[in-house]
Amino acid sequence: MESKKRFFLKVTAVFFLVSWSSIAQKDYKLWMQYDKISNAEILSKYKASVNGIVSLENSATAKISSNELEMALNAMLDSKIEVKSKIEAENSIIIGSESVLDAEIRTQLQKDLTLINEEGFIIKSILFKNKKQIVITGKKDIGVLYGVYSFLRLVQTHQPIENLNIADAPKTNIRILNHWDNLDRTVERGYAGFSLWNWQKLPDFIDHRYVDYARANASIGINGTVLTNVNANALILTPQYLEKVEALANVFRPYGIKVYLTARFSAPIEIGGLKTADPKDVSVMNWWKEKAKEIYKRIPDFGGFLVKANSEGQPGPQNYGRDHVDGANMLADAVAPFGGIVMWRAFVYSEHDANDRAKQAYAEFVPYDGKFRENVIVQVKNGAIDFQPREPFHPMFGAMPKTPLMMEFQITQEYLGFSTHLVYLPKLFQEVLESDTYQKGKNSLVAKVVDGTLDNHKLTGIAGVSNIGNDLNWTGHPFAQANWYGFGRLAWNPYLDSGVIAEEWMRATFSNDEKFINPVKEMMLKSREAVVNYMTPLGLHHIMDTGHHYGPGPWVSNLSRPEWNPVYYHKADKNGIGFDRSKKGTDAVGQYAPTVANIFDNLKTCPEKDLLWFHHVPWNYKLQNGQTLWNGLALKYQEGVDQVKEMQTTWKNVKQYVDPERFDEVEMLLNIQYKEAKWWRDACLLYFQQFSGKELPDGVEKPTQSLDYFKSLQFPFAPGN
Amino acid sequence: MESKKRFFLKVTAVFFLVSWSSIAQKDYKLWMQYDKISNAEILSKYKASVNGIVSLENSATAKISSNELEMALNAMLDSKIEVKSKIEAENSIIIGSESVLDAEIRTQLQKDLTLINEEGFIIKSILFKNKKQIVITGKKDIGVLYGVYSFLRLVQTHQPIENLNIADAPKTNIRILNHWDNLDRTVERGYAGFSLWNWQKLPDFIDHRYVDYARANASIGINGTVLTNVNANALILTPQYLEKVEALANVFRPYGIKVYLTARFSAPIEIGGLKTADPKDVSVMNWWKEKAKEIYKRIPDFGGFLVKANSEGQPGPQNYGRDHVDGANMLADAVAPFGGIVMWRAFVYSEHDANDRAKQAYAEFVPYDGKFRENVIVQVKNGAIDFQPREPFHPMFGAMPKTPLMMEFQITQEYLGFSTHLVYLPKLFQEVLESDTYQKGKNSLVAKVVDGTLDNHKLTGIAGVSNIGNDLNWTGHPFAQANWYGFGRLAWNPYLDSGVIAEEWMRATFSNDEKFINPVKEMMLKSREAVVNYMTPLGLHHIMDTGHHYGPGPWVSNLSRPEWNPVYYHKADKNGIGFDRSKKGTDAVGQYAPTVANIFDNLKTCPEKDLLWFHHVPWNYKLQNGQTLWNGLALKYQEGVDQVKEMQTTWKNVKQYVDPERFDEVEMLLNIQYKEAKWWRDACLLYFQQFSGKELPDGVEKPTQSLDYFKSLQFPFAPGN
Repeated sequence: MESKKRFFLKVTAVFFLVSWSSIAQKDYKLWMQYDKISNAEILSKYKASVNGIVSLENSATAKISSNELEMALNAMLDSKIEVKSKIEAENSIIIGSESVLDAEIRTQLQKDLTLINEEGFIIKSILFKNKKQIVITGKKDIGVLYGVYSFLRLVQTHQPIENLNIADAPKTNIRILNHWDNLDRTVERGYAGFSLWNWQKLPDFIDHRYVDYARANASIGINGTVLTNVNANALILTPQYLEKVEALANVFRPYGIKVYLTARFSAPIEIGGLKTADPKDVSVMNWWKEKAKEIYKRIPDFGGFLVKANSEGQPGPQNYGRDHVDGANMLADAVAPFGGIVMWRAFVYSEHDANDRAKQAYAEFVPYDGKFRENVIVQVKNGAIDFQPREPFHPMFGAMPKTPLMMEFQITQEYLGFSTHLVYLPKLFQEVLESDTYQKGKNSLVAKVVDGTLDNHKLTGIAGVSNIGNDLNWTGHPFAQANWYGFGRLAWNPYLDSGVIAEEWMRATFSNDEKFINPVKEMMLKSREAVVNYMTPLGLHHIMDTGHHYGPGPWVSNLSRPEWNPVYYHKADKNGIGFDRSKKGTDAVGQYAPTVANIFDNLKTCPEKDLLWFHHVPWNYKLQNGQTLWNGLALKYQEGVDQVKEMQTTWKNVKQYVDPERFDEVEMLLNIQYKEAKWWRDACLLYFQQFSGKELPDGVEKPTQSLDYFKSLQFPFAPGN
Repeated sequence: MESKKRFFLKVTAVFFLVSWSSIAQKDYKLWMQYDKISNAEILSKYKASVNGIVSLENSATAKISSNELEMALNAMLDSKIEVKSKIEAENSIIIGSESVLDAEIRTQLQKDLTLINEEGFIIKSILFKNKKQIVITGKKDIGVLYGVYSFLRLVQTHQPIENLNIADAPKTNIRILNHWDNLDRTVERGYAGFSLWNWQKLPDFIDHRYVDYARANASIGINGTVLTNVNANALILTPQYLEKVEALANVFRPYGIKVYLTARFSAPIEIGGLKTADPKDVSVMNWWKEKAKEIYKRIPDFGGFLVKANSEGQPGPQNYGRDHVDGANMLADAVAPFGGIVMWRAFVYSEHDANDRAKQAYAEFVPYDGKFRENVIVQVKNGAIDFQPREPFHPMFGAMPKTPLMMEFQITQEYLGFSTHLVYLPKLFQEVLESDTYQKGKNSLVAKVVDGTLDNHKLTGIAGVSNIGNDLNWTGHPFAQANWYGFGRLAWNPYLDSGVIAEEWMRATFSNDEKFINPVKEMMLKSREAVVNYMTPLGLHHIMDTGHHYGPGPWVSNLSRPEWNPVYYHKADKNGIGFDRSKKGTDAVGQYAPTVANIFDNLKTCPEKDLLWFHHVPWNYKLQNGQTLWNGLALKYQEGVDQVKEMQTTWKNVKQYVDPERFDEVEMLLNIQYKEAKWWRDACLLYFQQFSGKELPDGVEKPTQSLDYFKSLQFPFAPGN
């Protein structure tokens, strides 16, 4: 190892002799590289189709549309395409919302416009006064901006633009990033540096990154951002900070992005000078109403509040003998007059509840169905525990038909290798979204709960816990940019295929060369299964080390709350391993619709990927492939390691298609991922071996360190903790 | 104010519609923009003089030299200048250290080479086989690299290169940055984001910025870096972290930069398992010896330790009844076998010492003169208190002839407006360096203490507390880059003029246009006096708010240690204001050489800029300009505000010479600086007025807020605290 590492360092030192000129640029520019198109044939076709830009509108958003189009096309087509305000030449791209279109064009598009909602767009090739033109329009200027980014995506991915006829619109209302950013700029579960929000220099200093952040989000349709951590600090609601929030809102507004804040439930006490935060107390209700008024005076389009209450020590209505409905509705009433909403998190579990943690959110919230105000949406994590490499979909989806439920995904890789491991998360997101809840019979997909079609909800949304920080490359890992991108695309349309998204992203970010696209796409799509395999195969979960969740810690058993200990989740013993959530166990399966419950409940029908989530299984149990559970588990760990090795090979083979800086970055990170995959395999297998009492099967590499060694590892300054 | 601010935000929003392509680049590239030369005449002259590069050497450092030269010249001259290994064509730039030069060339340069030391360089136009060539050489490859950067600086600043004859070498051995970076990546007194050192991803992930950091430092001759905070954490000395330090040392080595660490004095207890850290205890001595051996095994050229001991709560030898000599020498003995050094800080003052804080370091350290080991250098801050906008030079300079003393400047603006205020610090540095200590008669300049010529020391150095963080632009303020640059240039040569340095920096960073250079240079050179005027005129000091030191806090009087309170320093009362350090007072003047002491001691000869540093002066005292002290003080505050207003005007007038992004950034920051200059003026004058009992004189704007308002301001998450 030692000599290898030294060699490696030497090699990179030579790489790094390259100039810096491209570094900050490439990494920083995300999926908006807008590289000149090098394929001459494609380039000439595009040039023939695009002669100029006609911008019909003058709003701030419209200016962004025309500037972006001009800048991007000039860069990609390497030509001088100018923006005009009148239609003259042929082959112009005409941009403007419905109301500013020439009457003749509007008439041509009338039918198309009925297909989209307020945020949607039309991209259409038309004949206008016998000249061929491309129109990008929508009901509002923000739709036009989304259309512009969609059009640019066609060019970025080398799609034909001769006969365009696209009508597209987002399937959810709230497509939002949750920043777990603290006011001191640390980021809870942040692995890409520190918070973008420079509170000290706000409101008067507007960092360029705020704009670039907004551009990147707008380009994938994200329309909301919660600036602050769900473990909230009430100070954000003081005038001193609201002035700063206002400045950010002003920057984001023309990009169609609304600002939201986390509301600390005890704020009336901490910054309001009240003696209570009881949601039934009139002074408390009034305090929040006044606070809402104050916020909306500064930020007329303020989105609303995200609340983590009575969860992991956060204050909430239960401190006063009230319930979640009382709390949520009180806040909802405060923001309702201004069109605001409350996103109330269902991530609750209690140390005083002896019930299986996986069951608690459902048990607590489902009885509230139908009791929340119209402007409340309940935000539910994708699984019932906590953003594991794999979880069955959360049983709440489909179980509260009278309540809008919002999906909460975690884009930042708290439990999936921080920003060091290449894990393409849209694959995970897709798996959840296409899960069938069976709550209204077959095809009651989670995606249909989320987009409101299953139970006819108008308020819909998807939240993603951001992986963005102030690292030069935004996300710590060049491929983690794909998770931000993919989240946005799925929030726009939860039915998109993660493979299609990966390809879009790769073409816009790296290269259109098929020799790059094909192997790297395969690598991305397999990467999520790899992390499951080397961390928590066969339904294992939450066996990460304490607090920071970096690396394996299946042995941890000394934490104050039982459900914080990995041993609570894997329950390994002489007899076997896994959490019995079957009807004979905690009956967590009973929270699913009967069809699903029966599948999960039966050891024979339960998908093996979820096996140890739902069952405590004997070490000698025969898996479908004929292996014993112990051997199968060990081989899964080995498979994960081997998959990372394959990823390393794949990457080495595409070197010629990637700029040296990003190539090098990813190579170094894959080396770490490989090292850590082996760490996971060795630590977990040595630990579980104590219970199975069995040898490692053939094909599994022997650990090079002892269990005591792995237990001794400490990471006092692990980030994000 | 309110309406102005809103207008301002709108304006910037429009600016920001510009594409992002240039943003990261310009700001990120520091003084190494290497822009194409737009002046055709100059360009053609350079092209005529530079035909190719001949690189004679193969070391990692030599490769950096040739790559840098190739990349920069190709960019600036917009041509294809290639690197060859043999001299063929005319007008080549021949680079290589003395030993690899062709014998005939070496003979030509023999005399020149006697003029430089091991790190020096020669740049000379020669005839070789009747062809005109430029040779860049030195005794070692690192000298060649410094020569390359020096040559590039000529081109960056549009100097002629036809008949070059330059011999230059650094005047100090240790030109070093002190990073007050913690292991959690917070930076004490850091205002440019967070630490560059990503300890979590090290050693296997080498961030590109590490290389760019090294390049930037090498380009100005910085040859050392202390990676960790002087308020040290012993964990940096554990194998887990030393492996990471080693990786950074490997990156920095070819750039001529040695790595140093801060040594927590109690490390033998905290990570060594010993019961004591007594420097006379054999087990402690051995522990450090073994630790040094361990470090040098990894990093053969490790620089050594920087130590803050028995200072502001840090552990040290006095905890065991020993003294600074015992502590420093014990560590020095540990690193001596490997050529390491110990930089022992003299920044000490005690809560148990009733003596004037300004006197304590001198009182404690001067008696130790001659008692330190040869490889110890005592690091002394530029003034006797703590990095104030202005302090008289530290009386220790020149007072310890038998001990090497190192200068410690603070590049980060702890007391000078964080990274929001434009303050060109080389002006401050120069003022200190050219101060005459008179310790060996007239012309015993501080610079001569620092470069060792006054007392014939071989070990010499200048340290700068870094202002570098992970902000896109490295330093938080585009003009704060000039402070990093200027520090490096003065560390190389403490006799350089700060105006010359400013001009170099501006040309390399922004523009060679005289219409930009002249006004902006004037702005930079005046900026330091401006901050003195609006914060602490006439010798006032340390009246910043508590802890974070952001904004004024002259009223603070409740801190546990008397010398932490602003009232301790200004001593304002009905009779007057200022700290009486004259012979009738604390006799701090007595620590200077008699000539200097007499000047400071006498109210009439004491420079007015230092007046209240040395004297408690009646409110009605007549200043040289005929004003009373009260009126003069108030007018100085106003003058500071007016100077910032002028800076704003200057900047607006050079808009056409600056890229929109950086123009905009600086404009926003100047707006904040103006607002904060008024805050300083109003808060301080309202507070001092309570004692003077006098009206503000004509010409001083009336405060718009009350003293209570200013006292009420709180900054709970101010950075760097």
